[in-house]
Amino acid sequence: MAPITRLVLDVLKPHDPSVVPFVSQLGDLEEIDAVTATVIEVDENVKTLRVTIEGGNLEVDAIRAEIGDLSASVHSIDQVACGSRTVDDPWLG
Amino acid sequence: MAPITRLVLDVLKPHDPSVVPFVSQLGDLEEIDAVTATVIEVDENVKTLRVTIEGGNLEVDAIRAEIGDLSASVHSIDQVACGSRTVDDPWLG
Amino acid sequence: MAPITRLVLDVLKPHDPSVVPFVSQLGDLEEIDAVTATVIEVDENVKTLRVTIEGGNLEVDAIRAEIGDLSASVHSIDQVACGSRTVDDPWLG
Amino acid sequence: MAPITRLVLDVLKPHDPSVVPFVSQLGDLEEIDAVTATVIEVDENVKTLRVTIEGGNLEVDAIRAEIGDLSASVHSIDQVACGSRTVDDPWLG
Amino acid sequence: MAPITRLVLDVLKPHDPSVVPFVSQLGDLEEIDAVTATVIEVDENVKTLRVTIEGGNLEVDAIRAEIGDLSASVHSIDQVACGSRTVDDPWLG
Amino acid sequence: MAPITRLVLDVLKPHDPSVVPFVSQLGDLEEIDAVTATVIEVDENVKTLRVTIEGGNLEVDAIRAEIGDLSASVHSIDQVACGSRTVDDPWLG
Amino acid sequence: MAPITRLVLDVLKPHDPSVVPFVSQLGDLEEIDAVTATVIEVDENVKTLRVTIEGGNLEVDAIRAEIGDLSASVHSIDQVACGSRTVDDPWLG
Repeated sequence: MAPITRLVLDVLKPHDPSVVPFVSQLGDLEEIDAVTATVIEVDENVKTLRVTIEGGNLEVDAIRAEIGDLSASVHSIDQVACGSRTVDDPWLG
Repeated sequence: MAPITRLVLDVLKPHDPSVVPFVSQLGDLEEIDAVTATVIEVDENVKTLRVTIEGGNLEVDAIRAEIGDLSASVHSIDQVACGSRTVDDPWLG
Repeated sequence: MAPITRLVLDVLKPHDPSVVPFVSQLGDLEEIDAVTATVIEVDENVKTLRVTIEGGNLEVDAIRAEIGDLSASVHSIDQVACGSRTVDDPWLG
Repeated sequence: MAPITRLVLDVLKPHDPSVVPFVSQLGDLEEIDAVTATVIEVDENVKTLRVTIEGGNLEVDAIRAEIGDLSASVHSIDQVACGSRTVDDPWLG
Repeated sequence: MAPITRLVLDVLKPHDPSVVPFVSQLGDLEEIDAVTATVIEVDENVKTLRVTIEGGNLEVDAIRAEIGDLSASVHSIDQVACGSRTVDDPWLG
Repeated sequence: MAPITRLVLDVLKPHDPSVVPFVSQLGDLEEIDAVTATVIEVDENVKTLRVTIEGGNLEVDAIRAEIGDLSASVHSIDQVACGSRTVDDPWLG
Repeated sequence: MAPITRLVLDVLKPHDPSVVPFVSQLGDLEEIDAVTATVIEVDENVKTLRVTIEGGNLEVDAIRAEIGDLSASVHSIDQVACGSRTVDDPWLG
């Protein structure tokens, strides 16, 4: 299996914990080099985040479990990249 | 035949396997340097992915077979590039 | 916990103090390398600012407290990034 | 005559041969450094491709003949460039 | 207080003095490295300018006073940046 | 007179000669480094091209004469640049 | 007075002289490094040009006089920059 180098996840998160400890704790997982979470929508009980994760060999199960431990859930996956380099989607620029 | 260096494919995929093992297994094929899959649409039974693949000498039959082995199918081809370097389409920027 | 390297905050601020001392004082906090505040909306009593903060290890509680000391409040968080490098959200470009 | 360095062609192609062997065979012509074909429209019997070709000294007659041999035809020419370097159209960016 | 490195001001200016001496005189203030004024709107008696000012340690009171001396006034502040480097707002690109 | 370094011309051209020999022959003029012609509109008898020409010291009369010799005509001039370097229009990016 | 490094002018010009000698002669003024004129509108008797001028120390009176000598007139000023470097307007990109 080729190592996963980028994941963009749509995450549903209750308001607690806040986005900052959520990102910081996620970024603490092994193999993660960088996490950027953009808040897309705020509802009464949940926030929708688009979470971009990059690393040398991302383990999606560990990431999903960690997101679950943080009381959040992966609603959907927006983008996945693997390989010895990361190629951009020509339609996203 | 000039070596194919980039393929952008529209892929229909059942929800199982998930996008991550799908990309990782595809990226494991010989001659593939990088795969980026963007989820374009989610329906009841299938996902539509735009899959950008780059490599030194891509073999489309092997890629198509691998996609089939992963229970998915190539719905259409959006872009193909070949040559000693990869040129961008001036209208896509 | 992975160090936070970028925060984008939606801040509600009364007209006094003005944006300039607000930014300058915020930028004086330890661990902050750069602050850029863009004025998004001006109402009768408050301004809405989008405040981008970058640093090596941002402490959100200290930032929130400082913003409170400056008579303003964090209305919401727009983006949070952590890690050994900062990755951009592919949908924001 | 100054050497042609870029051609962007609107090509009508029957569904067979597929885009991949079409691009690969086109890229095999002498003087062609790179070919990128983007699928613009798919109809019942034909595909419309925008084909960007770059090289040191492109021969349009050989390219047109090769496209004909591949059962396709040049519907129109979108862009042509020549010279010791390739300049971009300031309105296309 | 962290040094201010960029100010973007909305300035109302009578037609006299003209934009050129206005910018040139403003740029003469100590600590200012560069001024760029874009004319946003022209009315009967006033022009609205968006004035971008960069420097190592901008003094907003001196800038405001100088703008007043030039018969103009700061209508609002659009952006303020401080720090050892200048970070761009991710939503403005 | 400062040397002209870029010309963007709106050219009306009958369908014959085709765009490729038109560009190639134009690019053969002395002092021309690069020509890029984008087809903007196709009518029954003529094509409208936007022709971007760069060089060290472009001679517009020679270019206009050559375009006339090629049975085409300069309908209008879209952009002209001169100087020791070429500056871009800030509104075109 | 800080030296002016960029001027963007809205110029009304009769059809004669043509844009090319207009730009070339303007670019001949002392202290001008580069001129780029984009044609914005063409009316029966006049053309509207957006003229971007860069140099080390632009003299607007000499430029205005030269434009007058060329039978044209400065209708308005769109942008003015001064300083030891040229900063771009963050809203224009």
